[in-house]
Amino acid sequence: MHLRERLRAALAEDLGPGDITTNGIVPDTQQGTAHVVAKQGMVVSGMDYGIEALRAAAELLGQPLRVDAHVKDGDHIESGTMLLSMEGSLKAILVGERIALNLMMRACGIATHVHSILEHVGEATFRAVDTRKSTPLWRDLEKAAVRHGGGHNHRFGLFDGVLIKDNHIAAAGGVAKAVEAAKAHVHHLVKIEVEVTNLGELRAALEAGADGLLLDNMNNEQLQEAIAVARQMAPHAFLEGSGNMNAARMAEIAGFGLDVVSVGGFIHQARWADLSLRIDPVHG
Amino acid sequence: MHLRERLRAALAEDLGPGDITTNGIVPDTQQGTAHVVAKQGMVVSGMDYGIEALRAAAELLGQPLRVDAHVKDGDHIESGTMLLSMEGSLKAILVGERIALNLMMRACGIATHVHSILEHVGEATFRAVDTRKSTPLWRDLEKAAVRHGGGHNHRFGLFDGVLIKDNHIAAAGGVAKAVEAAKAHVHHLVKIEVEVTNLGELRAALEAGADGLLLDNMNNEQLQEAIAVARQMAPHAFLEGSGNMNAARMAEIAGFGLDVVSVGGFIHQARWADLSLRIDPVHG
Amino acid sequence: MHLRERLRAALAEDLGPGDITTNGIVPDTQQGTAHVVAKQGMVVSGMDYGIEALRAAAELLGQPLRVDAHVKDGDHIESGTMLLSMEGSLKAILVGERIALNLMMRACGIATHVHSILEHVGEATFRAVDTRKSTPLWRDLEKAAVRHGGGHNHRFGLFDGVLIKDNHIAAAGGVAKAVEAAKAHVHHLVKIEVEVTNLGELRAALEAGADGLLLDNMNNEQLQEAIAVARQMAPHAFLEGSGNMNAARMAEIAGFGLDVVSVGGFIHQARWADLSLRIDPVHG
Amino acid sequence: MHLRERLRAALAEDLGPGDITTNGIVPDTQQGTAHVVAKQGMVVSGMDYGIEALRAAAELLGQPLRVDAHVKDGDHIESGTMLLSMEGSLKAILVGERIALNLMMRACGIATHVHSILEHVGEATFRAVDTRKSTPLWRDLEKAAVRHGGGHNHRFGLFDGVLIKDNHIAAAGGVAKAVEAAKAHVHHLVKIEVEVTNLGELRAALEAGADGLLLDNMNNEQLQEAIAVARQMAPHAFLEGSGNMNAARMAEIAGFGLDVVSVGGFIHQARWADLSLRIDPVHG
Amino acid sequence: MHLRERLRAALAEDLGPGDITTNGIVPDTQQGTAHVVAKQGMVVSGMDYGIEALRAAAELLGQPLRVDAHVKDGDHIESGTMLLSMEGSLKAILVGERIALNLMMRACGIATHVHSILEHVGEATFRAVDTRKSTPLWRDLEKAAVRHGGGHNHRFGLFDGVLIKDNHIAAAGGVAKAVEAAKAHVHHLVKIEVEVTNLGELRAALEAGADGLLLDNMNNEQLQEAIAVARQMAPHAFLEGSGNMNAARMAEIAGFGLDVVSVGGFIHQARWADLSLRIDPVHG
Amino acid sequence: MHLRERLRAALAEDLGPGDITTNGIVPDTQQGTAHVVAKQGMVVSGMDYGIEALRAAAELLGQPLRVDAHVKDGDHIESGTMLLSMEGSLKAILVGERIALNLMMRACGIATHVHSILEHVGEATFRAVDTRKSTPLWRDLEKAAVRHGGGHNHRFGLFDGVLIKDNHIAAAGGVAKAVEAAKAHVHHLVKIEVEVTNLGELRAALEAGADGLLLDNMNNEQLQEAIAVARQMAPHAFLEGSGNMNAARMAEIAGFGLDVVSVGGFIHQARWADLSLRIDPVHG
Repeated sequence: MHLRERLRAALAEDLGPGDITTNGIVPDTQQGTAHVVAKQGMVVSGMDYGIEALRAAAELLGQPLRVDAHVKDGDHIESGTMLLSMEGSLKAILVGERIALNLMMRACGIATHVHSILEHVGEATFRAVDTRKSTPLWRDLEKAAVRHGGGHNHRFGLFDGVLIKDNHIAAAGGVAKAVEAAKAHVHHLVKIEVEVTNLGELRAALEAGADGLLLDNMNNEQLQEAIAVARQMAPHAFLEGSGNMNAARMAEIAGFGLDVVSVGGFIHQARWADLSLRIDPVHG
Repeated sequence: MHLRERLRAALAEDLGPGDITTNGIVPDTQQGTAHVVAKQGMVVSGMDYGIEALRAAAELLGQPLRVDAHVKDGDHIESGTMLLSMEGSLKAILVGERIALNLMMRACGIATHVHSILEHVGEATFRAVDTRKSTPLWRDLEKAAVRHGGGHNHRFGLFDGVLIKDNHIAAAGGVAKAVEAAKAHVHHLVKIEVEVTNLGELRAALEAGADGLLLDNMNNEQLQEAIAVARQMAPHAFLEGSGNMNAARMAEIAGFGLDVVSVGGFIHQARWADLSLRIDPVHG
Repeated sequence: MHLRERLRAALAEDLGPGDITTNGIVPDTQQGTAHVVAKQGMVVSGMDYGIEALRAAAELLGQPLRVDAHVKDGDHIESGTMLLSMEGSLKAILVGERIALNLMMRACGIATHVHSILEHVGEATFRAVDTRKSTPLWRDLEKAAVRHGGGHNHRFGLFDGVLIKDNHIAAAGGVAKAVEAAKAHVHHLVKIEVEVTNLGELRAALEAGADGLLLDNMNNEQLQEAIAVARQMAPHAFLEGSGNMNAARMAEIAGFGLDVVSVGGFIHQARWADLSLRIDPVHG
Repeated sequence: MHLRERLRAALAEDLGPGDITTNGIVPDTQQGTAHVVAKQGMVVSGMDYGIEALRAAAELLGQPLRVDAHVKDGDHIESGTMLLSMEGSLKAILVGERIALNLMMRACGIATHVHSILEHVGEATFRAVDTRKSTPLWRDLEKAAVRHGGGHNHRFGLFDGVLIKDNHIAAAGGVAKAVEAAKAHVHHLVKIEVEVTNLGELRAALEAGADGLLLDNMNNEQLQEAIAVARQMAPHAFLEGSGNMNAARMAEIAGFGLDVVSVGGFIHQARWADLSLRIDPVHG
Repeated sequence: MHLRERLRAALAEDLGPGDITTNGIVPDTQQGTAHVVAKQGMVVSGMDYGIEALRAAAELLGQPLRVDAHVKDGDHIESGTMLLSMEGSLKAILVGERIALNLMMRACGIATHVHSILEHVGEATFRAVDTRKSTPLWRDLEKAAVRHGGGHNHRFGLFDGVLIKDNHIAAAGGVAKAVEAAKAHVHHLVKIEVEVTNLGELRAALEAGADGLLLDNMNNEQLQEAIAVARQMAPHAFLEGSGNMNAARMAEIAGFGLDVVSVGGFIHQARWADLSLRIDPVHG
Repeated sequence: MHLRERLRAALAEDLGPGDITTNGIVPDTQQGTAHVVAKQGMVVSGMDYGIEALRAAAELLGQPLRVDAHVKDGDHIESGTMLLSMEGSLKAILVGERIALNLMMRACGIATHVHSILEHVGEATFRAVDTRKSTPLWRDLEKAAVRHGGGHNHRFGLFDGVLIKDNHIAAAGGVAKAVEAAKAHVHHLVKIEVEVTNLGELRAALEAGADGLLLDNMNNEQLQEAIAVARQMAPHAFLEGSGNMNAARMAEIAGFGLDVVSVGGFIHQARWADLSLRIDPVHG
């Protein structure tokens, strides 16, 4: 579902058959200016979503509205910084305001949260990536916010990367059969990752030809041993750690040699950052 | 956008042209059972959304899947409690799992957060309600979660309640004109609420015939005085307090006599609750 | 469903895979001018719908068309008055013409019909409002036409006002339980109206805390008694009369003191007003 | 736009985010029975639309509802006759009721109106047909109602019949060029009709090879002469009369020998017929 | 489904959540020019589809792109001829390229194939037309391509022409009943065609009042006899031949006197023509 | 766009406002049986698409239809083999028939064409894969048909594999920068392929860290040298050959050691296979 369609649906959710406060009171021709301001320090994200939401509101009403960006995604800003300003139809501002802010507050909240975790972790051998634990219909917004906060992304969805878990292995009748079946099915630009929880599974997966491993829920000792064994068996294979990762744990394992660590909490433990929109109606 | 359409769009977001892991490995006829389990104590919410997501996945694949609920929205459960169980197509489970959990974790997170705030506040004269600060396209999920956590809802959107703010008043040329215009425009089942920040505005709004007031960003002293004046002028008018409400502040003003307090943080400061889905493939 | 989408669907209904008369005969570059003229005296309504239908046709064809309004909704015009004029792609005019006229003729017909009833009624204590008896997918057009004719609107749909009828009361187990349940469910900006048909029900509803009453199918005597009792019990409650209202009956009860009278026939007894579109192809 | 989609959109128009009366009061499991009854004598039409609307409501809510028809489209019934009965979810009945009735009242109104006109006209040489003056998005409903009332249909839209009017002729540079261009463009199962207003145009159109003629806005004398000339020149060509046709005029020209008469008022001068839905909640 | 919607869906099919090559590498502001060139001699078709696909890509990305046509549908061009050129956003070119070419290669392939067959057939008494054997969702593209190659179209679909086959006759209980039922059902601008396979059926169909006949799967002798009998019985009836028509057979029967020959292979035996798009990024 | 939606749109394309032949003649309750039969030897593909098209037709009409498959995708069958049989509503069969056959004939045509090429090629070191040259909106159908014919797939679209071409390299300012930018942007389960046309580019791409190479438009000698150099520099990199591949060329290079060869003609040079549907109406 393309962004424009989601924004239209979001406006419809809020507007229903119409803004009964504004329609009764504000003339169609009323102009206004407004600006979006940070009420806390934050890492910026979601700028395009906010801008497009405001434009979609203006388009819906058939009214003009110019929106200008004053910062860009990934910028670190202080409380009081202006992110957006706009000038045009007051009705369009009033209708688009809430959707724009709701998206931007969510995105800035995630970017700020990710940045704060990564700052705590410091130097590490790995890329810290998100997971598929994201708000349905807004995965693109949230995954972009992870990048703006300094993180990276895992696969977008079920269609652009193979991750073989225990259920797949059980259904296939063993890890070798599962890897072989996956390789036969997918095209040659997709890598095959296998989730393993112990050394036996790790060896089987690499022998089966996995391109990389997900080392799930291992303690530090297990993780270090797994990395050592895997590096020896398959120097080209990538190694990803996962399982309730937070800043403290990530700092502990920063030097173990993992290529990737996946962190569900980048998205699902983030709160919204605080933004407000201030309006000046233009009289006359 | 009806729930079923949103769930289909959410599945499309995750699935794209297909689950390349499962399609290569799991036979269409493979059966399985699975259950969703709480990994922390929580207030339950989002049950129908999770169930419908799983059913939408099954329908998408044209495969059978039976889903049974073991708790209901609003229940308080301990870690380890089973919320849902399901039996049928393993592919449907694997495809629907993530969407179902993402929605339920969000909803349970909000319900649990709201409950925890209200427990801290204790007895109060007011209904604690949410705001329009909600995730676009999931306002119904989030507003229901607020109710399951013990809160109430404010208006759903811009179409089912009039809330006149300073910009509307400025555009109309005064609070009396704004209230009059709104009353002429809306039908007779809708109340008119006016946002005020001081006693002068309060008096003007009540004189203009407002059905209720939003007392915004007042300190305790201002709030008490405003309530006293309003009750005298207009005993039937409802009074709502708002402005960065949290558990501590709400406890302070619990006995002031407000009818409603609105709390944006019910939704935007909630984190996801922890749920997991465990699968048992059925062999043979 | 937003207006633009409905207009596209309406064009698709008429056009199917294409206008086989025009496509075979009229060159893409052919220009034309046209105007919409009243063929009877009428109250104007539906101007935006007509204009947008013509624009949607032009957009569909990727051709330019300028449309100008010469009157506005609510104007009273004589036969022969020009409502719209347009200049641009002849194909766009030929494709958009029928949808534009069909919508405007319906809207002007309703506005004219409502005006004629209200003129007959003269001064009254009540707002005359429409009902939910409206053409599916065009309720906004028809409710706006009621306003342009001098009437008012009742709630838009099932979502923006509570109207408790006998079935709800039976399902709840009594009027007190029904009102209480409704109040617990809805937000604080929505009023609760209860339909009553005799004094017993009237008293029960007001005791239960209804914000207003629908006095259904009462004769004049019953109506006057009901109003008297209700005003004494609950001076703030609004009172609405309903039941096969027409101009004669509305005139009879104009002084009884009702706040609202609802009139299904505003919409379902209206015929289309007569408009025609005249085209001048531009040669060369 | 398929019927099911239109019904879903119509339900969405009425329901918005939910029926706030019913949701607060009626339990999901509440059963009920209801029947739709005629409150006047009428010709039945729109049965499938009413039934499908009720089913769409039940499907939307995920609740069971059985709907049975007791009459069929085209039946002539007396006041008091039951058209539909239903049994199942009370919520589904309450949600679907209004859409079902609104469509059926419109359709029965048209069928009854058409029948009454045709009864007045009596025996005639012509088929009486409708025009493209129909409510956007409901042309199928309205054209079927014309048939149920005893009338016939003209082309459905712009895509399934060629009707060359003066603007087409002007754009083509003459009637011969217009007919030739149309014939080259369309497939061999479509007839070419040309609108003419005098004998000169009539002769030119038949010489150009038109399959039939629309004799527009002629008085009785002109009409008789036109028919005589056309029958001599082209015995196979069909002849259609049009222009503000009503029952009286149609009776006058019933014996002139026309093949077809088109009557916009079949649809745009019809009022809704009166139907009501009565509900019995099932207790226990 | 309007072209713009199909193009958006086609872009979504190719793009999914984004072009991961381009998004990582090409700056949003990068400009480029490109041109589409024929790599073989061909008859041009699908120009508007290619242009609209490129524009839809530009619109999707919110980037400017100017596209200019250098030939028009129906032109016969040599290898090396430039069909389109474009200038603007490099990203829009890269995203729209494949959809534009895929549609144009298909359309040019059909037009070229049709032309080559008709050239072989030479002068004939009949229009050579296509059938309903076309790629679902692209029938308009393919039927237009048939015209550009010099052929004509049969009915577009099931809605704009009556073609009675043996199953319809069996269901109706005889050809006379089938023709009568069809005539009663359809409007007066649609002709009734009946499929016949021998002289008995032919006579019955013409006696029943068919407007034309489909002479299916007859050999040359049968065809000639059928044409002779039909012309005598019903000089106005059109005659269509069908059944595995190819260039050789069409040439054989070119002088038999048929009005129409229908050729499924115009569309389903065509291969794509060879086009390529060459890009010059603009530096700086 | 999910298959069900595309099938509904395809039915709408063919049906428009209704099948005017069938609606006039065939009673709603008429039952029938039918079967789809091969009229040539072929490799089967598209079975699910045909079955779903027929089911979608039945669902659209609200009529029952049972469809049974007698072969499966990938089967090699002789002329006269029955692929599908069905029993139920005759109207559903008549409406679904054409869409089902059009999709199956296309899919079987591709599978048969691919099989015939691969049979000619015989043993080879490479997987033969398709390209993005596919019919818009039916890429899944066509790519599945390639697999059923014995081929493999390349990436599905722009979102699930990185293929860096000369324009990307130019825009990035060199192959090293392009590969680095792509790696930073994409997740760790996606491989980076670079298109090269000579040894200089080949060396630069491998030095930049490409996971694989597309060797484009090289002659046999160039190809062999390129393979040798690449294997020495980067034993793990995959090598793909492309450029106007056909059966003869593929046979020539079968032993050169390529991992993948991509063949646009698998899809765009295929013609439809011949299938027919035969109906037996059930009387009584």
